[in-house]
Amino acid sequence: MQKVNEYLKENEGRFIAQLAEYIRFPSVSAQPQHKNDLQACAEWLRRHCEEIGLDAKLWPTTGNPILLARTPRSRTGRRPHFLVYGHYDVQPPEPFDLWKSPPFEPRIQGRSIFGRGASDNKGQHLAHMNAIEAYLKTGVELPCDVTFLIEGEEEVGSASLAAFAKQHRDQLGCDALVISDTGMPGLKQPALTYALRGIVSFEIKLLGPARDLHSGIFGGSVENPAMALCRLLGSLRDHRGRITIPGYYDDVVPLTRYERKELARLPFSQRAYQKLLGVRRLFGEAGFTPTEQRTARPTFEINGLTSGYQGEGSKTIVPAWAGAKITMRLVPRQKPEKIRQLVFQYMRRVCPPTVRMELTAGHGAEPYFVSPQGAKCQAALRALKQAFGCEPVLIREGGSLPIINELTKVLRTEALLLGLALPDDNAHSPNEKFDLDCFAKGMLMSAGLWPELAQASR
Amino acid sequence: MQKVNEYLKENEGRFIAQLAEYIRFPSVSAQPQHKNDLQACAEWLRRHCEEIGLDAKLWPTTGNPILLARTPRSRTGRRPHFLVYGHYDVQPPEPFDLWKSPPFEPRIQGRSIFGRGASDNKGQHLAHMNAIEAYLKTGVELPCDVTFLIEGEEEVGSASLAAFAKQHRDQLGCDALVISDTGMPGLKQPALTYALRGIVSFEIKLLGPARDLHSGIFGGSVENPAMALCRLLGSLRDHRGRITIPGYYDDVVPLTRYERKELARLPFSQRAYQKLLGVRRLFGEAGFTPTEQRTARPTFEINGLTSGYQGEGSKTIVPAWAGAKITMRLVPRQKPEKIRQLVFQYMRRVCPPTVRMELTAGHGAEPYFVSPQGAKCQAALRALKQAFGCEPVLIREGGSLPIINELTKVLRTEALLLGLALPDDNAHSPNEKFDLDCFAKGMLMSAGLWPELAQASR
Repeated sequence: MQKVNEYLKENEGRFIAQLAEYIRFPSVSAQPQHKNDLQACAEWLRRHCEEIGLDAKLWPTTGNPILLARTPRSRTGRRPHFLVYGHYDVQPPEPFDLWKSPPFEPRIQGRSIFGRGASDNKGQHLAHMNAIEAYLKTGVELPCDVTFLIEGEEEVGSASLAAFAKQHRDQLGCDALVISDTGMPGLKQPALTYALRGIVSFEIKLLGPARDLHSGIFGGSVENPAMALCRLLGSLRDHRGRITIPGYYDDVVPLTRYERKELARLPFSQRAYQKLLGVRRLFGEAGFTPTEQRTARPTFEINGLTSGYQGEGSKTIVPAWAGAKITMRLVPRQKPEKIRQLVFQYMRRVCPPTVRMELTAGHGAEPYFVSPQGAKCQAALRALKQAFGCEPVLIREGGSLPIINELTKVLRTEALLLGLALPDDNAHSPNEKFDLDCFAKGMLMSAGLWPELAQASR
Repeated sequence: MQKVNEYLKENEGRFIAQLAEYIRFPSVSAQPQHKNDLQACAEWLRRHCEEIGLDAKLWPTTGNPILLARTPRSRTGRRPHFLVYGHYDVQPPEPFDLWKSPPFEPRIQGRSIFGRGASDNKGQHLAHMNAIEAYLKTGVELPCDVTFLIEGEEEVGSASLAAFAKQHRDQLGCDALVISDTGMPGLKQPALTYALRGIVSFEIKLLGPARDLHSGIFGGSVENPAMALCRLLGSLRDHRGRITIPGYYDDVVPLTRYERKELARLPFSQRAYQKLLGVRRLFGEAGFTPTEQRTARPTFEINGLTSGYQGEGSKTIVPAWAGAKITMRLVPRQKPEKIRQLVFQYMRRVCPPTVRMELTAGHGAEPYFVSPQGAKCQAALRALKQAFGCEPVLIREGGSLPIINELTKVLRTEALLLGLALPDDNAHSPNEKFDLDCFAKGMLMSAGLWPELAQASR
């Protein structure tokens, strides 16, 4: 291990130069004109993997190629196998004028490297590749097999990945999936993300009269669908922020004492948070901290409301219909389909007979959860602590990463989310950067991770 | 009187020809290209008034001229004075392709004359002029002075009328204002409209976070303004259709037993009404008939709802704000300003502290009411009964006619609304028509109205 870590430190300058080279490819998957840049970027990555000693291949898809790169397999029998997921495609750089330096001409300032894709996700998976390189070049034996699965369509929905994983299930079957594509609160708070919320969406439309009616001539004798919608949706959450749909919380796994203690360790300033959101006070389910509310509790949110006249001034109508777009964030073990049915049933029960209701199901994604007290999580936490020199924190994310569910289901494994992005890395925004200390410590973490994980998997 | 009525019958053919001539002017006040047509129409009207023996003058305004035409004043002292209001401007005729004959080429079919403006309002005030002509040409003494006030901007908001009325208050001061610009349910139901609802409008906007927030990252820990809006507005009406704002009904004058009996005489088929509106069932304040609900009870209606994302598919946001456009229909003696303040105060009291509320006042108009049991209304009802040969009905209108409030306030008088339009006259729509029986009986009614009104005003 000593030799591996020394190699990583000695070669840090070259690693940074290589990251810069990698960032130079404008691999913007959302923009068709960059199709060739994505191909060239994938080719560069394949060559790089071969140069460090991996067996690398690009697999064509209907979109952009997927890279598979494997460590040389041991001849002395089966070792644990870990899969590292990442993506070489990046978000569009626009608006250009907000960038202090061109997005695809990496600029190093202090301990930051600026450029589109630096943190999301090129720098993060390159850190893992550098760690593997260190093993392979120093001759220190890796205690496990490692395969890199790096796709080029993450920013546009990973359309090819699930089918690819199913097709290559034999090669991809693993003891755990390692993903560095999330974040950590700060350099002193390396983090393991152990849970994600799921989601389920639908639309509701209440139909009243056949057309907008004159509110003077008819108003008062016929239901106003906008009034009915407000009454219906307004009753679904009580004043303590609790969703009133019967059974909604039935499958929610309560936070353990350990989790609440860990989540309470996360840095949180109510004042700074309010300022960030632009509100004078917060609101959420009573009995939970804001961190818990936004990551570990389910929600019912109106994303959009539409009815009647929305232009300047007033129009004296009883609108023909009113509609709302709804998403609910789910937590382990709520099932999107079950919750949707529960909500639809309830809506049908409470909808007044004065309107006709249309409910349209939207997309759904399951929540994700891996026990932070499990052996592999504990192994990952040790690797984080070792590399960063401080106690790591446990994180739940409020959003959903559908691809994690896809991969862990197809491959029947669990995912370890060891994100290296800092809150101010500007992922998806102008002046994206990656912190070079996160890069360096990420490599050390990865180097230390494999023995820990191999140990925990035996 | 015999002579007057005979004159009207003998000259009916000529009156119809004159109405056709009047309709030929495309006096469309909303369309600038018809400016000269409005002037020509007003000139024709002035000449016509002079020909029948009135003292007529056109008064220029910043818009279209206003006609004032007076019967010769008596030399034997003060007589009661009545003002007949009407308008010579018409709605735009578009869409042309839905007209069975050109809108400004009057066509007579059966007992209908088709053409834009036939019923709204040329035919209706011409009926009154014909009645006055009959008095003047037969030498039968009019028991009162009559002044015609015919404007050319009614369809575009009567911008000049209130100022004109103020300026000419001396000439216009009267014992009652007679307006034939509303409707009657059928030829067997001549009608007096004795009440109109008022209106007050406002907008409400609830502001939450400074921008749309990611519902995964932040949702659950911050108020969703669309949820708050639904909760707020949804609570303002109970399941019995009653508005829950304290004091809202305080100034409402209850319907008298006489009124309820009269309103119940109006033809009403629930089935036909539901079909007209396109609903499977009606909804309104419990304890009142649909006719009462839509004309004699106040309402609280959402005219429009706006929040967040309204496009295709879903967008997972906590919207930054949510807004609604509201109008309330008021009934005698609710005051728009008082009701608005009441509602605003209540809103401020119940608005949760988790959002910032913006309330913006819109337009308002007072309800109108004249007691149907008063002497002049009873006089008008007798004239209706006499001319149409059947018992007249009493009507409340659900909409507002702001000009009536303006005129009755400026002139400190009451208005008698004796509409001659049938429900299928297509006012404001293609194939507008006026029923020639309504025209003929309207003249007889007007002829009989002056002695009755004069008697009631002494």
